[in-house]
Amino acid sequence: MTRDLHSAADLTWPEFRDRLGQTTLLVPLGAVEQHGYHLPLDTDNVVPTRLALALAERVDGVVMPSFQYGYKSQPSSGGGGLFPGTTSFDGQTFISCVRDLITDLARQGQANFLFLNGNYENTYFGIEGIDLAVRMLPRNQVKVLLVNWWEQIPIGDLQEIFAGQFPGWEAEHAGVVETSLMMFLDPARVLADRIEPDVSWPLATYTVLPEPPGLVPPSGVLRGATGASPAIGARIFGYLVDRIEAIIRREFTP
Amino acid sequence: MTRDLHSAADLTWPEFRDRLGQTTLLVPLGAVEQHGYHLPLDTDNVVPTRLALALAERVDGVVMPSFQYGYKSQPSSGGGGLFPGTTSFDGQTFISCVRDLITDLARQGQANFLFLNGNYENTYFGIEGIDLAVRMLPRNQVKVLLVNWWEQIPIGDLQEIFAGQFPGWEAEHAGVVETSLMMFLDPARVLADRIEPDVSWPLATYTVLPEPPGLVPPSGVLRGATGASPAIGARIFGYLVDRIEAIIRREFTP
Amino acid sequence: MTRDLHSAADLTWPEFRDRLGQTTLLVPLGAVEQHGYHLPLDTDNVVPTRLALALAERVDGVVMPSFQYGYKSQPSSGGGGLFPGTTSFDGQTFISCVRDLITDLARQGQANFLFLNGNYENTYFGIEGIDLAVRMLPRNQVKVLLVNWWEQIPIGDLQEIFAGQFPGWEAEHAGVVETSLMMFLDPARVLADRIEPDVSWPLATYTVLPEPPGLVPPSGVLRGATGASPAIGARIFGYLVDRIEAIIRREFTP
Amino acid sequence: MTRDLHSAADLTWPEFRDRLGQTTLLVPLGAVEQHGYHLPLDTDNVVPTRLALALAERVDGVVMPSFQYGYKSQPSSGGGGLFPGTTSFDGQTFISCVRDLITDLARQGQANFLFLNGNYENTYFGIEGIDLAVRMLPRNQVKVLLVNWWEQIPIGDLQEIFAGQFPGWEAEHAGVVETSLMMFLDPARVLADRIEPDVSWPLATYTVLPEPPGLVPPSGVLRGATGASPAIGARIFGYLVDRIEAIIRREFTP
Amino acid sequence: MTRDLHSAADLTWPEFRDRLGQTTLLVPLGAVEQHGYHLPLDTDNVVPTRLALALAERVDGVVMPSFQYGYKSQPSSGGGGLFPGTTSFDGQTFISCVRDLITDLARQGQANFLFLNGNYENTYFGIEGIDLAVRMLPRNQVKVLLVNWWEQIPIGDLQEIFAGQFPGWEAEHAGVVETSLMMFLDPARVLADRIEPDVSWPLATYTVLPEPPGLVPPSGVLRGATGASPAIGARIFGYLVDRIEAIIRREFTP
Amino acid sequence: MTRDLHSAADLTWPEFRDRLGQTTLLVPLGAVEQHGYHLPLDTDNVVPTRLALALAERVDGVVMPSFQYGYKSQPSSGGGGLFPGTTSFDGQTFISCVRDLITDLARQGQANFLFLNGNYENTYFGIEGIDLAVRMLPRNQVKVLLVNWWEQIPIGDLQEIFAGQFPGWEAEHAGVVETSLMMFLDPARVLADRIEPDVSWPLATYTVLPEPPGLVPPSGVLRGATGASPAIGARIFGYLVDRIEAIIRREFTP
Repeated sequence: MTRDLHSAADLTWPEFRDRLGQTTLLVPLGAVEQHGYHLPLDTDNVVPTRLALALAERVDGVVMPSFQYGYKSQPSSGGGGLFPGTTSFDGQTFISCVRDLITDLARQGQANFLFLNGNYENTYFGIEGIDLAVRMLPRNQVKVLLVNWWEQIPIGDLQEIFAGQFPGWEAEHAGVVETSLMMFLDPARVLADRIEPDVSWPLATYTVLPEPPGLVPPSGVLRGATGASPAIGARIFGYLVDRIEAIIRREFTP
Repeated sequence: MTRDLHSAADLTWPEFRDRLGQTTLLVPLGAVEQHGYHLPLDTDNVVPTRLALALAERVDGVVMPSFQYGYKSQPSSGGGGLFPGTTSFDGQTFISCVRDLITDLARQGQANFLFLNGNYENTYFGIEGIDLAVRMLPRNQVKVLLVNWWEQIPIGDLQEIFAGQFPGWEAEHAGVVETSLMMFLDPARVLADRIEPDVSWPLATYTVLPEPPGLVPPSGVLRGATGASPAIGARIFGYLVDRIEAIIRREFTP
Repeated sequence: MTRDLHSAADLTWPEFRDRLGQTTLLVPLGAVEQHGYHLPLDTDNVVPTRLALALAERVDGVVMPSFQYGYKSQPSSGGGGLFPGTTSFDGQTFISCVRDLITDLARQGQANFLFLNGNYENTYFGIEGIDLAVRMLPRNQVKVLLVNWWEQIPIGDLQEIFAGQFPGWEAEHAGVVETSLMMFLDPARVLADRIEPDVSWPLATYTVLPEPPGLVPPSGVLRGATGASPAIGARIFGYLVDRIEAIIRREFTP
Repeated sequence: MTRDLHSAADLTWPEFRDRLGQTTLLVPLGAVEQHGYHLPLDTDNVVPTRLALALAERVDGVVMPSFQYGYKSQPSSGGGGLFPGTTSFDGQTFISCVRDLITDLARQGQANFLFLNGNYENTYFGIEGIDLAVRMLPRNQVKVLLVNWWEQIPIGDLQEIFAGQFPGWEAEHAGVVETSLMMFLDPARVLADRIEPDVSWPLATYTVLPEPPGLVPPSGVLRGATGASPAIGARIFGYLVDRIEAIIRREFTP
Repeated sequence: MTRDLHSAADLTWPEFRDRLGQTTLLVPLGAVEQHGYHLPLDTDNVVPTRLALALAERVDGVVMPSFQYGYKSQPSSGGGGLFPGTTSFDGQTFISCVRDLITDLARQGQANFLFLNGNYENTYFGIEGIDLAVRMLPRNQVKVLLVNWWEQIPIGDLQEIFAGQFPGWEAEHAGVVETSLMMFLDPARVLADRIEPDVSWPLATYTVLPEPPGLVPPSGVLRGATGASPAIGARIFGYLVDRIEAIIRREFTP
Repeated sequence: MTRDLHSAADLTWPEFRDRLGQTTLLVPLGAVEQHGYHLPLDTDNVVPTRLALALAERVDGVVMPSFQYGYKSQPSSGGGGLFPGTTSFDGQTFISCVRDLITDLARQGQANFLFLNGNYENTYFGIEGIDLAVRMLPRNQVKVLLVNWWEQIPIGDLQEIFAGQFPGWEAEHAGVVETSLMMFLDPARVLADRIEPDVSWPLATYTVLPEPPGLVPPSGVLRGATGASPAIGARIFGYLVDRIEAIIRREFTP
């Protein structure tokens, strides 16, 4: 392993100090969550972490160590909590992690934060953690963004990338987009031969707890990954880096 | 005011006791939130409360007093926190309210709960509150549903109702659906003459905190309410009651 | 339902904005609690809400949506927790609700708050919520009152109103005062024919948990409602509005 | 200092083990609170601790170390928070202290607890702590009492003790009862020459926060201690021990 | 009992007020914890309380009532949680107690605090409570020390005091140092005839939960108290008072 | 990156499911903390993670994603909080992370956990998190170890490894042991030319907050790394793997 000078983990403290307050800190928000028979449990961590590293290079930012555990997967927006391996924090725990990170780095003089989120269910707890931190700090001491990477690609552009075959975000969990991204970013950890044929599974339109079995296909994939490819992954990755770079330049440039 | 025997507020304790454990309790989740120049601050409370009362009549359920305050409105899914009147609880507070309601009623012998949610941002904090309660109770002592009313109408059906003019859920906040429902349910409190012309306002695809001004049109309505009518409200209301009744019969009938 | 321009729920956000900082906000604190065979579960919500609306008209204040759930009823000061229907929040939950309401409205520019409490057991948790909020805010940004309505009538005046037959506050729970008020405010929801004869039941002088049965008469009423009448309710209601109006004018007038 | 074998603090662990489960544990709840010019800050700790030790001797109980800090003094029921020396815990902190004590001793096998409270404002937070503990434990594993000592003397008996001069509990804070008890229990720490003449000070009937000055007389005593004497203190102390002993025998005897 | 004017418990509020802001407040942190067959459960409270009182006399400080309950004893650094009598607070409870004490006294104008800790396991929760308080207060409003008394004697000095027979801090729990101190401070409560012969018991180098039996010798003493004497206790006590006095003079003198 | 089948992050959910309940889960506890001029901020994460992976291979265990953020560094046991880059969670946040991980994996059927800690200050908050989880779960459902790696090498063995030059654990922070381990495990990220000459800096024997400057040498290293070498790192690493393997076999073998 060599040093990546855009990764806080790799820096000594004087190197980090020299960047504080001058740069955007990127914080990947991940999850430990089932992603079907073919993707590893840390998929939701890999995608935002790799995006963050690419973005940090573009904008001379610094990537903080990621939050590897996220909020609980739901059947309607992921795989649900019945699959072994999906290991999550309670809402208040996740909120506190986000709040503490911001307040401790603000104390050090950092102003600009971008949380790059890879797990849908983290969204509102992340927002709450940011809001609690922002209200504890003097007005306008920090500016904090939370970006869900998948919200940065309009469906029209996805249809173009997938030549009209994109089945829609509502069925995406370990689907064609995530699988393509992982094929591009981390091919050795994609079990391509374990990709199941697509299914048509009715998605729950409401929440039931305790979660009953059967809301999600047996594989844990809501629809399927047919059509995923490293080339598509590369294209989506590049697209996302461009888009999020634009956000950073718009929001954090003086 | 006369007594509504499907409303817990109106019952004496022996009347309530006779229903406990035999019925579905419906709990409206509302918000105090700006809804443009034309709808009142309690719009998100009125809609699920009226739905719950209609449903309780259908399935012989009981409606608990609603949660009148909800989680913080966001610019991408509501009006955001900059409009006066939007008055919210912190995430942990809302979580605790939901958790306490379930555990206290479970202690009394109640098994079946349906939270009927009227404010998008309540969703995940409501789920967390339910999850905390369910985990504190003996296995399968309770069964709890959380239903966002707007997720029970597929967009296809809305296009039929609106004769193809439905602009999409992403822009709905005090829009054609909520306005139509309020025109039907509570016409005296709709200031129809204050409805603004529709606007085309780019929705944020990410969160910024502290919230900057300008993410939402000056009225607080993301797009507009053009085309709203009491007749459409009545039709949507009837549609929703049918749909959610079907959910209750499916999930809570032995 | 018509619009009550002193009720925040009925206002649009610009109407609410125009009142913020210029007015007293009144927040009713209620409970969902057994009130004998003859009064509905929301009695503790109705009384402070109706008082608040009457006061708002007098002082041109604004009434916020009430807190419908309160802290746990105790045998010595209410009906205790063994009666079905009594549905309560934990102490910390109630504290947080009060704290969040104040801090969120203070952020909007509101300075003067009056919590009008209808459930004895809410008192100290309400005070704690106010104290936490006040300490989080800049010094003297807000001024907050908590008023228990029953503490505003000296026992001498009650004896006069009841022609010497007032049995004392210690036995009042769904008793002559609350029943009279409900007969005046909400007669259709009082089951007058279910009023039990008065009993003489020894009140607990200490707390036992888990609560044993028998601390409270079978009806849930500590003593009885003999002598209650709408006329007395009207007189007490008028008395209370006068008294609390005087408090508002004394505390909030420059 | 010699060993008091009814005081847990003085026992070795094998001595304490031999009492666990066989005895009533008494836990004094105190406060650090101003008590006028003539009584020490720990008055609310001394009274319940001495009562507990006397009771333990009577019923062969064991006294746990007291909680020396209590919940915040209020102007209407104590001296308020403006007097230096009044040093308190937040509500949730006090709740947690009570909860933890019970659950940790229940784990050791203890079933019977009596919290003997010396500070009015502790009451509801103590009850909440007990309730949280009781709900966390298996049903009927523990039985917990909370006794406010002053609620065990009816006013009629006080009038007899004071020969008709008892001014009423509402004005008692460092008044005739507490002063008499301290004169009996701890005379070297009563500054009898600093007792002020009685005053007639209107008590607040509602709460205002931040607390304004002037709600309490300058001395911190609500009315006065005129007529206090060690003899009266001895008589009240004996009365209370008898009464609370009766409670213990009634509640904890098989 | 006579008044100790360096003990806050003994002061009236005007006496306390006159010291606030001018003095160092000393707060003993204790525990209710087994200390073998020969020392009482409150040993960890006695030692820091007596040190604090001696220090207060030296530096004209004021001792606050101690925290009598501490954090959970561990097998590697105390006696573990399996011995009856060891009665502890959860971590968050202890943190909150420390935080609240500081913030409430800072509100009163106090700047200098010294927590004198008698129970190893309190250390980090005490530090966290202080840190939370310090961050809530305006910068440099308070200065807070946490002193573990045993860390103020270098092992070399102990070897001199014990003539080379000091077995090391790692085995000290109810050992020669604590026993000597208690023999000096509180001889009537030391059961000298119950001191067991020294044992050689392997100390755990890691934590196991739930705690298995056998990690600690049956007596609860990690090694033994052979060689303890009141004279050694007196010498150590004097040594500690000198050392901690020097800390106070260095840290709190202008 | 290839797949490591002992790393949960790399597994699909069926692969993880097949290991659950049959294996020991190892959870590295790290920190983001300054480690002098020569070691990266994630040093406390690297060491336990690499140990865990080596151990998992030995005992066929599974390594969960690490906790990358730890509790606050203290001057007496690390570098303190004044160095930029040291980014930490509050105590309650860290406690909750540990608690949630255990309870969520116990729900999945996992019984054996070993937290391998790399940051001294995590210790007690980790223990508290484990204790809270263990108490929430049915008795003996899980067995949880917390191992501080440095406590597994007796000082005698270190003196042998270092040929008598080991300066003692009290001065180890980015010192000879950690530097040697990093030189062995991750040489490309050790800036060997930035190692400062050893210093003799008096360590604080007590805590002061807010933390004053100067308690730690300017480099952040308490003493120095003179004598560190990859060969020593390899030897210590091998030693630790042997020792901790023995713990696992002793504690988790039937």
